[in-house]
Amino acid sequence: METVQITAATIIVKPGDGEAAATARELAAWLSNKDVAQVRGPLIAGSQEADGAEFSDGELIVVLGGDGTMISAARIAADADVLVMGINYGGLGYLTDFRIEEMHNGIDAVFAGEYDVDSRVMLRAELWRGEEKLADGRVLNDVVINKAAVARIIEIDVSLNGLFVNSFRADGLIVSTPTGSTAYNLSAGGPIIYPSMNAVVLTPICPFTLTNRPIVIPDSAEIELTLDNENEGVVLTLDGQNGYAMHSGDRVKIRKSGTTLKLVQPPNRNYFDVLRNKLKWGR
Amino acid sequence: METVQITAATIIVKPGDGEAAATARELAAWLSNKDVAQVRGPLIAGSQEADGAEFSDGELIVVLGGDGTMISAARIAADADVLVMGINYGGLGYLTDFRIEEMHNGIDAVFAGEYDVDSRVMLRAELWRGEEKLADGRVLNDVVINKAAVARIIEIDVSLNGLFVNSFRADGLIVSTPTGSTAYNLSAGGPIIYPSMNAVVLTPICPFTLTNRPIVIPDSAEIELTLDNENEGVVLTLDGQNGYAMHSGDRVKIRKSGTTLKLVQPPNRNYFDVLRNKLKWGR
Amino acid sequence: METVQITAATIIVKPGDGEAAATARELAAWLSNKDVAQVRGPLIAGSQEADGAEFSDGELIVVLGGDGTMISAARIAADADVLVMGINYGGLGYLTDFRIEEMHNGIDAVFAGEYDVDSRVMLRAELWRGEEKLADGRVLNDVVINKAAVARIIEIDVSLNGLFVNSFRADGLIVSTPTGSTAYNLSAGGPIIYPSMNAVVLTPICPFTLTNRPIVIPDSAEIELTLDNENEGVVLTLDGQNGYAMHSGDRVKIRKSGTTLKLVQPPNRNYFDVLRNKLKWGR
Amino acid sequence: METVQITAATIIVKPGDGEAAATARELAAWLSNKDVAQVRGPLIAGSQEADGAEFSDGELIVVLGGDGTMISAARIAADADVLVMGINYGGLGYLTDFRIEEMHNGIDAVFAGEYDVDSRVMLRAELWRGEEKLADGRVLNDVVINKAAVARIIEIDVSLNGLFVNSFRADGLIVSTPTGSTAYNLSAGGPIIYPSMNAVVLTPICPFTLTNRPIVIPDSAEIELTLDNENEGVVLTLDGQNGYAMHSGDRVKIRKSGTTLKLVQPPNRNYFDVLRNKLKWGR
Repeated sequence: METVQITAATIIVKPGDGEAAATARELAAWLSNKDVAQVRGPLIAGSQEADGAEFSDGELIVVLGGDGTMISAARIAADADVLVMGINYGGLGYLTDFRIEEMHNGIDAVFAGEYDVDSRVMLRAELWRGEEKLADGRVLNDVVINKAAVARIIEIDVSLNGLFVNSFRADGLIVSTPTGSTAYNLSAGGPIIYPSMNAVVLTPICPFTLTNRPIVIPDSAEIELTLDNENEGVVLTLDGQNGYAMHSGDRVKIRKSGTTLKLVQPPNRNYFDVLRNKLKWGR
Repeated sequence: METVQITAATIIVKPGDGEAAATARELAAWLSNKDVAQVRGPLIAGSQEADGAEFSDGELIVVLGGDGTMISAARIAADADVLVMGINYGGLGYLTDFRIEEMHNGIDAVFAGEYDVDSRVMLRAELWRGEEKLADGRVLNDVVINKAAVARIIEIDVSLNGLFVNSFRADGLIVSTPTGSTAYNLSAGGPIIYPSMNAVVLTPICPFTLTNRPIVIPDSAEIELTLDNENEGVVLTLDGQNGYAMHSGDRVKIRKSGTTLKLVQPPNRNYFDVLRNKLKWGR
Repeated sequence: METVQITAATIIVKPGDGEAAATARELAAWLSNKDVAQVRGPLIAGSQEADGAEFSDGELIVVLGGDGTMISAARIAADADVLVMGINYGGLGYLTDFRIEEMHNGIDAVFAGEYDVDSRVMLRAELWRGEEKLADGRVLNDVVINKAAVARIIEIDVSLNGLFVNSFRADGLIVSTPTGSTAYNLSAGGPIIYPSMNAVVLTPICPFTLTNRPIVIPDSAEIELTLDNENEGVVLTLDGQNGYAMHSGDRVKIRKSGTTLKLVQPPNRNYFDVLRNKLKWGR
Repeated sequence: METVQITAATIIVKPGDGEAAATARELAAWLSNKDVAQVRGPLIAGSQEADGAEFSDGELIVVLGGDGTMISAARIAADADVLVMGINYGGLGYLTDFRIEEMHNGIDAVFAGEYDVDSRVMLRAELWRGEEKLADGRVLNDVVINKAAVARIIEIDVSLNGLFVNSFRADGLIVSTPTGSTAYNLSAGGPIIYPSMNAVVLTPICPFTLTNRPIVIPDSAEIELTLDNENEGVVLTLDGQNGYAMHSGDRVKIRKSGTTLKLVQPPNRNYFDVLRNKLKWGR
């Protein structure tokens, strides 16, 4: 168990949820009585203010919302050495797995240095057209190439460290982290991957060739996806939130990000507890 | 074995395939020596000329191309009581299952009344917005609602003869005929359905709820799909060829078409022969 | 809505469930005050007494237990023109979809002729070795050929009305009715089939060839399965309850049974209600 | 590229294949002219002689046959620091991926120290009843618990480093290495895992709960499977070859083996080449 002296706190809250906003304001007041130099927020996830926020090492970010709110927070948090804690509104989340009633005790435990952290691998994706880099970004869940609504099939050439893997003819392709394995990947037929694994899974979406099954590869590999067709409307999506139009011949280069998301774990609830709950495994 | 006296013939050919076009012209010359009142074509599949063609009962339509060419021909052929024969270019097709070298003998057999016909059910789909019918069409394969490339999930309410089935949260939904069951439906995890069955299969595409499995229902049912969300870019696609933008609240009504596609069968090759070949079931 | 004048009633109860047995005895007493010539039972499902029971036309069989109890009852009930009503103990069943608190009203409605019936297709299976018929039986759910625990793969040749379908190399093969489609078939990757359909689904279990997908065929077809290997320990199982050892070359002939199971339907709960409940489709 | 000075060679050959045996004898003669202290074999895979063979460090084992022959050889080879080379008879194997015509050049390259090696993780499994260890063994592919042919479902409790994962109700459970991921695991719906990964996949066979999907975990984890039911005929199978009857309460403990299988790689053919060939991914 590594511990960090918390020096500042930021609250990020789900947009458009009045109850979450009220709780977030109460939490800000409660935190201001703690021994921290600064309490910031609540900031609305995805807002200009939140996306422009800078974080210093040793900061605690408390996220109130669902997994989507956490993904949004992860995008801005991962550059600094910060701790992130997810408080769920509604049902339990994979990433926001503290219940509201556990929030104050959970934060006190973090201040006391008594907590566990789960380090989640993130990926960095770049979109290239010829020699020009059109976009880049970091993802906690997945990098997805998807066909347009009306087109039937696209063709994506995949290579791994320069080695040709396959030319996938499909509705699209998901490159998912272990964290993202329980999101879109699962709907597309991919496996669950234990969060601490150094793995990435390539999952074709509705592949034309039925034997094109999900492939689990090391996260140290440099993955290159090349769009190999003339269809219009193909889109690269990062973490389901940011989309970029792709043309034939465009390449997506994906490698492991240098930083990880440090997620504070609730006591008495582990990954498999959350999995059983979310996937309704109990009888 | 029902037989029809062939009185006219039309040739429909795959667009942009010079070799197919040459074969089609040779076939037109060969047919003009037969005892038929009229030989029309070759018409380019999907061209204005082809889409505007009218057919009379007892006509033979010879399709040279792949399954896509046949789907295009089916759309225009199904109103009249015509026979359709599919000649494949390249690998064997599900619908174009005569080989080129079997073409002349196959046509002679049709003229001699010595052939088998496979009647394929088609569906009729209508797109409604409030009280206004925006579009309708007939499909041989499938009616598909698909999300836009960048959006993650849409919600589609399905009812059967007015009975609520489910609210599917997914990338989309396929309503497929038995003929279409080996096309998109198969890639999305649906079953193969024997072509003569009076069945339709509802297959959700990448459903959020993993237990949302394909459902086979009678083709006599009136199916209604209602788009239940505000996402932009949702598209209704008929047979993978014609697309229509959908708004929240739009409804798609699907029922069995009054006409079927009468597909001439090659001798010595049945449905399972084609299936084993296409799906590479042999060792 | 067809109605039948109920002249006698039999109660069949799940074995080894004291509470169900007590309810069954109370029900017998309650029924004896109704205008019926005879009240029989409670008989223990699967007991010699139950399996030897004979039923007359117009009899009502009330089943208290789960779907397994109903399957057991279906085996003995289907020869006569009887009505069957399933009362569930524990969670809702696909076949035992009356709740206990709905039992008395439900039975009264049957006596009053105010009920709906769902006729479920059953299959008849025969096991042949050369010219000798070794066994036969009727199933409501499925006919299954399964390998022994230790062997890896068996090979089963399938034909349909004498037409060769495929040689399946797999752990086994399921031939399921629409009723059975939500049982073992679903676990093996098969589709849900609407109960009133005249369909059967062939679903290979863990097929070696990944493109060997479930196939839906008409229930009018005569299906023949031939075990094509020398493995020991292969077993034919009827409705998951009766098992018969198979040798290489043994054949299983399957055709639609002449009789159906007439299942009384609860008011205000249709097939899709049960499906959504059992498969946890609600959010 | 690590290289080893080859001091001895052993040939292991597929049982019951006269052609393979003849090639193996020719190979033994050819090898005896090389600069090696000893040439042993051909030994029949799985024979007492082969299973009792001891290997010294720096030995080359040439396997002639298919993947089953290699699995048999792996069981006896893995204790010593030996190189293994698989020559395929018939179609290309995942593990026996040298073609016969590449055999002599391939062996010469090994003697010259010009080769690549792929180290494949193996697992060690122990079967425990109370305090008694009933059996143990090492596997290259998979540890499988399977129900008997006639039984429907078994229940297996899984824990990981003492952490409860789930109680799987299924036909069985596969614990597969990356090497085994393309074998039984693939038929049961599991993902392909790149061979060098430090991963194991848990794949339930026909799970009752449809959301029980394959889970990829680190191979450093200690996995414990407990059979939690009274069914008869449950069997533990190691690499599809050795079976052990299991009783209720029996535990299977699985951890990474201390040794790996060092598989000589053919030049100009990588893992993805083999994968595309075996799974017929090419058009």
